[in-house]
Amino acid sequence: MILTFTDFGVAGPYLGQMRAVLLRAAPEIPVIDLMSDAPAFEPSLAAVLLAALEGTALTGDVVLAVVDPGVGTERAPLALEVDGRWFVGPDNGLFELVLRRAREARSFRIAWRPDTLSASFHGRDLFAPVAAGLARGRTDTLAPAAPLRFPDWPDEPPLVVYVDGYGNAMTGLVAARLRPATVVEAGGRRLARVRTFGEAAPGEPFWYENSLGLVEIAANGTSAAALLKLAPGTSIHLTA
Amino acid sequence: MILTFTDFGVAGPYLGQMRAVLLRAAPEIPVIDLMSDAPAFEPSLAAVLLAALEGTALTGDVVLAVVDPGVGTERAPLALEVDGRWFVGPDNGLFELVLRRAREARSFRIAWRPDTLSASFHGRDLFAPVAAGLARGRTDTLAPAAPLRFPDWPDEPPLVVYVDGYGNAMTGLVAARLRPATVVEAGGRRLARVRTFGEAAPGEPFWYENSLGLVEIAANGTSAAALLKLAPGTSIHLTA
Amino acid sequence: MILTFTDFGVAGPYLGQMRAVLLRAAPEIPVIDLMSDAPAFEPSLAAVLLAALEGTALTGDVVLAVVDPGVGTERAPLALEVDGRWFVGPDNGLFELVLRRAREARSFRIAWRPDTLSASFHGRDLFAPVAAGLARGRTDTLAPAAPLRFPDWPDEPPLVVYVDGYGNAMTGLVAARLRPATVVEAGGRRLARVRTFGEAAPGEPFWYENSLGLVEIAANGTSAAALLKLAPGTSIHLTA
Repeated sequence: MILTFTDFGVAGPYLGQMRAVLLRAAPEIPVIDLMSDAPAFEPSLAAVLLAALEGTALTGDVVLAVVDPGVGTERAPLALEVDGRWFVGPDNGLFELVLRRAREARSFRIAWRPDTLSASFHGRDLFAPVAAGLARGRTDTLAPAAPLRFPDWPDEPPLVVYVDGYGNAMTGLVAARLRPATVVEAGGRRLARVRTFGEAAPGEPFWYENSLGLVEIAANGTSAAALLKLAPGTSIHLTA
Repeated sequence: MILTFTDFGVAGPYLGQMRAVLLRAAPEIPVIDLMSDAPAFEPSLAAVLLAALEGTALTGDVVLAVVDPGVGTERAPLALEVDGRWFVGPDNGLFELVLRRAREARSFRIAWRPDTLSASFHGRDLFAPVAAGLARGRTDTLAPAAPLRFPDWPDEPPLVVYVDGYGNAMTGLVAARLRPATVVEAGGRRLARVRTFGEAAPGEPFWYENSLGLVEIAANGTSAAALLKLAPGTSIHLTA
Repeated sequence: MILTFTDFGVAGPYLGQMRAVLLRAAPEIPVIDLMSDAPAFEPSLAAVLLAALEGTALTGDVVLAVVDPGVGTERAPLALEVDGRWFVGPDNGLFELVLRRAREARSFRIAWRPDTLSASFHGRDLFAPVAAGLARGRTDTLAPAAPLRFPDWPDEPPLVVYVDGYGNAMTGLVAARLRPATVVEAGGRRLARVRTFGEAAPGEPFWYENSLGLVEIAANGTSAAALLKLAPGTSIHLTA
């Protein structure tokens, strides 16, 4: 299985062109679009989401991850083998948190180049053909090389990393790591913790452990992001 | 074929995670996302859309329908066998209109539970694995049980049930049931009936029988929803 | 491979219904949604995008293209065989630029009609079954006929033809045809040419040759469309 993780947007011709390349190169490999609206321009936020989605710890997949504001510049194209799974994408920190949590990792740069490489769409021209090859066991496109590392990035940033279509705001905080007495504050409001949406009063903001294990700020039947003015990058305050 | 019908939104990581679960559990079963932006929070409106989409009366499919504002509360998980097709989802009225129109129906609760069940994403953790099993003929996840019924919900609610990307407003009214003299009024305007968009003057709102057989309010080349201030839940007035 | 190119929007039940028809009619043929948000109401703009996406010159595919504001009127349904690839859709100019660039083309009207044909959704009822048939080599749905031609439409219109989710504005201009001294102006600003996003200062609008070979107006890390008030149909000015 190839899993795509991109900031291409659900609209537009980008995902379709990349999917067409994957299908031609490896017609027998199924492809799932895991997420197509990862935060653009911000590999550090997308890195949190990607690592959280990796929490299910399955193996045998190829993750084709393209959040690539530096496309066409000197940033290197990367392939990582992490705990039995391949990750393909730009060397810009997108895989930083996946790497930190790895038990075992091998890293490579992509040495292969296509005959025609556009300046702005390496997802279609470079990363997709390599991902399709890896899904078929073909690694001759790669040469060993170390990725850039980003030691300053926190493991669990106290920031909003994603706002979904309901207006729920995922943060980089791992719920299981918070102490019972910890108070979560966002948009100037102290938030109660609930187990699930139905436990909260309609319209009342709260936080809960979401299905990825993250602290998520939500409201029952309305948009917490609109209510509390939350967007990717907004700070969350914790007090003990 | 598994058909998904959800309010997850087309963006975000939800549909992709559920699709990945389906693919791992039943790789040979094709999956089509029939609709991913059903009205959230309102099973009664989504129920109208789901029943209208069912009008084609095909058999052999599994419909995985998740509009589930009560996820994580005591609402039961349900599976229904209706006229040769399986429906899997929450017991909150989402299948009420499908059930009313059924010639033959058997109903079950989902007795199986996964090792890990998130509080907020039963679509991924509970409903998808069961749907994949049913697509392969596996019913040992089920136990006979009656669903909740919602006798107060009208068969054909005179309400907007969905606004599409063009700004066309689908209603719960079945076009074939309206008498020729009936006048449809919405947003304070009496609307003429046309057969198709090209018959109406540019910018002029009208109603027509849409491709699901429903009364739909539209305008040629512009958004009827913006023009007439229509949203899911808005009342439509009929006069004889 | 069947490639869909539509203005249905990524949300809504339309694409899913059409995909379900394709899957039932030709389960062994993979389908990729190349683009689902082509400019609605404007076949002349969509025609530019479709021809640009065709630039990769692959063969053996069926392109199911539905941008069809005249659905249900007297416009004919069309099938074209262009350089080893089938195009299926409405006879409204959508294929005009594909035809002009063809080395070899044969044209047909669709003579077949389904038992039930809705007034507004020929994509589902008429074009999808025919496209599925063509993907399997079945041409008995067709009869020779010439398409309408639109000689007034420019080959490379100096207009915005699409604005993507990042706010980048694709134009109908082919970058390779511009002379080095040509100045591109949009929204009252003279734009510098860069090779890729990373070469431009943050927030500064520019133009570059996009991955389809078109002149695209963009800005590093922000929306050029918002900055310069660009939308589909906006004029671009060239001075030598």
